[in-house]
Amino acid sequence: MVSIKPPAGMRDFLPLDLSRREYALSIIRNVYLSHHFEPIETPVLERIETLQGKYGEEGDQLIYQVLKRGQKLEEALSQAPILPHQLADLGLRYDLTVPLCRVVAQYQHELPSIFKCFQIRPVWRADRPARGRFREFVQCDVDVIGTRSILAEVDVVSAACEALAALGLADFQVRINDRRLLTAITLAAGIPPQKSGTTLVALDKLDKIGPDGVERELGERGIGPASIKLILSLLADGCATGDEARLRLGQMAQDLAERLEPQIATDLQEILHLLAATGIPSTSLLFDPTLARGLSYYTGPIYEISLQGSAGSVGGGGRYDELVGMFLGRTVPACGVSLGIERVLMIMEERGLLAGVTPTCDVFVACFPEVSAEPSLRLAAELRARGVVVDCYPEPTRLKKQLAFAQKMGARVVLLAGPDEMRQGQVTARQMSTGRQITLDSSEAADHIVKLLAGQE
Amino acid sequence: MVSIKPPAGMRDFLPLDLSRREYALSIIRNVYLSHHFEPIETPVLERIETLQGKYGEEGDQLIYQVLKRGQKLEEALSQAPILPHQLADLGLRYDLTVPLCRVVAQYQHELPSIFKCFQIRPVWRADRPARGRFREFVQCDVDVIGTRSILAEVDVVSAACEALAALGLADFQVRINDRRLLTAITLAAGIPPQKSGTTLVALDKLDKIGPDGVERELGERGIGPASIKLILSLLADGCATGDEARLRLGQMAQDLAERLEPQIATDLQEILHLLAATGIPSTSLLFDPTLARGLSYYTGPIYEISLQGSAGSVGGGGRYDELVGMFLGRTVPACGVSLGIERVLMIMEERGLLAGVTPTCDVFVACFPEVSAEPSLRLAAELRARGVVVDCYPEPTRLKKQLAFAQKMGARVVLLAGPDEMRQGQVTARQMSTGRQITLDSSEAADHIVKLLAGQE
Repeated sequence: MVSIKPPAGMRDFLPLDLSRREYALSIIRNVYLSHHFEPIETPVLERIETLQGKYGEEGDQLIYQVLKRGQKLEEALSQAPILPHQLADLGLRYDLTVPLCRVVAQYQHELPSIFKCFQIRPVWRADRPARGRFREFVQCDVDVIGTRSILAEVDVVSAACEALAALGLADFQVRINDRRLLTAITLAAGIPPQKSGTTLVALDKLDKIGPDGVERELGERGIGPASIKLILSLLADGCATGDEARLRLGQMAQDLAERLEPQIATDLQEILHLLAATGIPSTSLLFDPTLARGLSYYTGPIYEISLQGSAGSVGGGGRYDELVGMFLGRTVPACGVSLGIERVLMIMEERGLLAGVTPTCDVFVACFPEVSAEPSLRLAAELRARGVVVDCYPEPTRLKKQLAFAQKMGARVVLLAGPDEMRQGQVTARQMSTGRQITLDSSEAADHIVKLLAGQE
Repeated sequence: MVSIKPPAGMRDFLPLDLSRREYALSIIRNVYLSHHFEPIETPVLERIETLQGKYGEEGDQLIYQVLKRGQKLEEALSQAPILPHQLADLGLRYDLTVPLCRVVAQYQHELPSIFKCFQIRPVWRADRPARGRFREFVQCDVDVIGTRSILAEVDVVSAACEALAALGLADFQVRINDRRLLTAITLAAGIPPQKSGTTLVALDKLDKIGPDGVERELGERGIGPASIKLILSLLADGCATGDEARLRLGQMAQDLAERLEPQIATDLQEILHLLAATGIPSTSLLFDPTLARGLSYYTGPIYEISLQGSAGSVGGGGRYDELVGMFLGRTVPACGVSLGIERVLMIMEERGLLAGVTPTCDVFVACFPEVSAEPSLRLAAELRARGVVVDCYPEPTRLKKQLAFAQKMGARVVLLAGPDEMRQGQVTARQMSTGRQITLDSSEAADHIVKLLAGQE
């Protein structure tokens, strides 16, 4: 007998859990729609070449690869030696951004010049499973393609924050930085440009491993002790909000004037200012000079969203002006935010924000032996046509058992059309909360039941 | 440069197409919910052993297989000879029924004794792509697990038919048969039991290749000419509705009395009768003694749904009482219907049923140079909080260009907060259908615009 569990790191969702997931996802979706982000969808499978080389070496290792089929597989297997990368031609998408960039390249003449879109879809990573980390998980992405305007940043970040607020998670914090600022700091610390990338990968771990850990890791990555000391001191001040953030950015622009376009600091100031105008409390908007973000494709402002009292982030993103170019051969500016629904749901669960969300069943129709189901089916169809959720028990078991089942399903009204009712052309409606029963003429039953459910009777 | 098309047989969906898909899927979903089918979701990937051996030999060939990773892959590649089936440990789901049966086995103690569920999800088949046939496509399944009652058949078939009617496709036809009836006929035709399966595979093609084609194919499958003649004559009468169906089934029950439980014919009569009680016109309910269905796991009644004037079916299903048992080791009765959304959407498109479905944009906010975006962003946030879809143009390009863009996006109102308006604390609202412009005080603007959109001003 084969294992009946889902594969490691992947999950089955039963109705209660799934209803809660779908409730949260629909709230996010509606906020994204309210910003006029439009939905797009790409295949779960992409060509393996589309995926590879976009996520850094570690990322590439985590892509699920799909075996070639038929003759192509035979050809690959007839080679000596067999190279693993010749065995696969497709892969499961690793994120939603790379497929989006392929779409932007492919349909460049059909899409609006400034294209705002969202995707709420699963992605797959062959990562080591851990608490809250899955191999199949859903991302909720919003992106603006085709503009360098910082209003695009404001749009995606405010949409994600509004989504969190709409979920009841208003205690979010947005930390903002710019990749070019970080690069200027590494240069100022005497780190050569070609080591800038590896430095950012180490800095990205500051949250997790602390300054000592980063110091060690930078050393392992070949950064000299003087540079390490300098960069850590440049970043030692930590986060700032409001006027302090503004001042700090101004100071940095001055200090780094030789290596940093002044506009970059001004833009960060303006992004923070305009995000406050969208209704985000300015105390929740932080300039964080240490924020680095893991992915290699960011080119400008980067952002990360976390919730108070919860480790790790619930979302993040940034500007990735060169990624579409990898498919198109010319630069198309773009930026986006991705909310991770898995952590969001865990926190909502912990805070009891999902307790009230349960699948609904308005009416449950009992089944009797020796009685045709025909009138019950007619009534059920009539009620459904009026928007009522109606379940019909399919077996004439003991009524007590059926009532217990209806209770478990959360039914509000149980309809009984037994032999007595049938003879009289009637049906009995039992309100489950009170046990009160009323007998209705079949012809008027639907009307009465709709009113009963609306609490008007 | 790598190809930027989606992989062969798979599709990207841009906003207009996707909005239409999602519109149709949400209608189906709501009908399924109205029957109190509850949502479940399983991983896209299953263990390869879970999938294999369930779909017949041809089906097995079409499963997308996922390459093992890390050390397991190295081990598989170090074998001599390398066997393709040792290279993969996971596969993309081929249908929604097999994963459902795994779930029923895994969570048997958590699920209700009679479990009604639905899944609207993609599946993958490495099939030859053709018009209307894709390698990634969505199925809309409803299933009832845990009862042998024919009311379960009535529930799933009527739910699928109501979904079609709700989509505006009321001209559906349901053809019904029973696998055991077909088996009795093959036995009566002198075909030995062990050839019953292969006979059904050939009969399943009657629609596509006609009686001559089936005759040839049966011959190729080793069925003798006398048996072929007999079976085709037994099936020659074709479909029947209403009283004729009832009579025909009664006659068959008599003729096949030695090989057929009489209850099987009575049940088919009753299913047709009760489906009519749910509101399906009895002329749309056909007994079709030639209906075979391709999949090997059906054990009882089978059904297929098609639309008039369209070749092929839009849905089908049947009873599969032994499939859960392949995972659980004991029989759990079950039946279900699957609607194929791809063909449904093609037909809806052909009939113009989707023309009115377009993404909406209520309000579009223009962008001016030398003016802060702050008041516009405030107003946009205020409007969104009231349920209005608001887009903000991010660049201060020529107003004419922005208005053209807003028109293309389908915006109903464009808001202009230029230097003049800013000085006065005002905003101008332009109705796109009429070109009429009104100037509003910023403090009251949101109220006015909401009324304007509701057509009250």
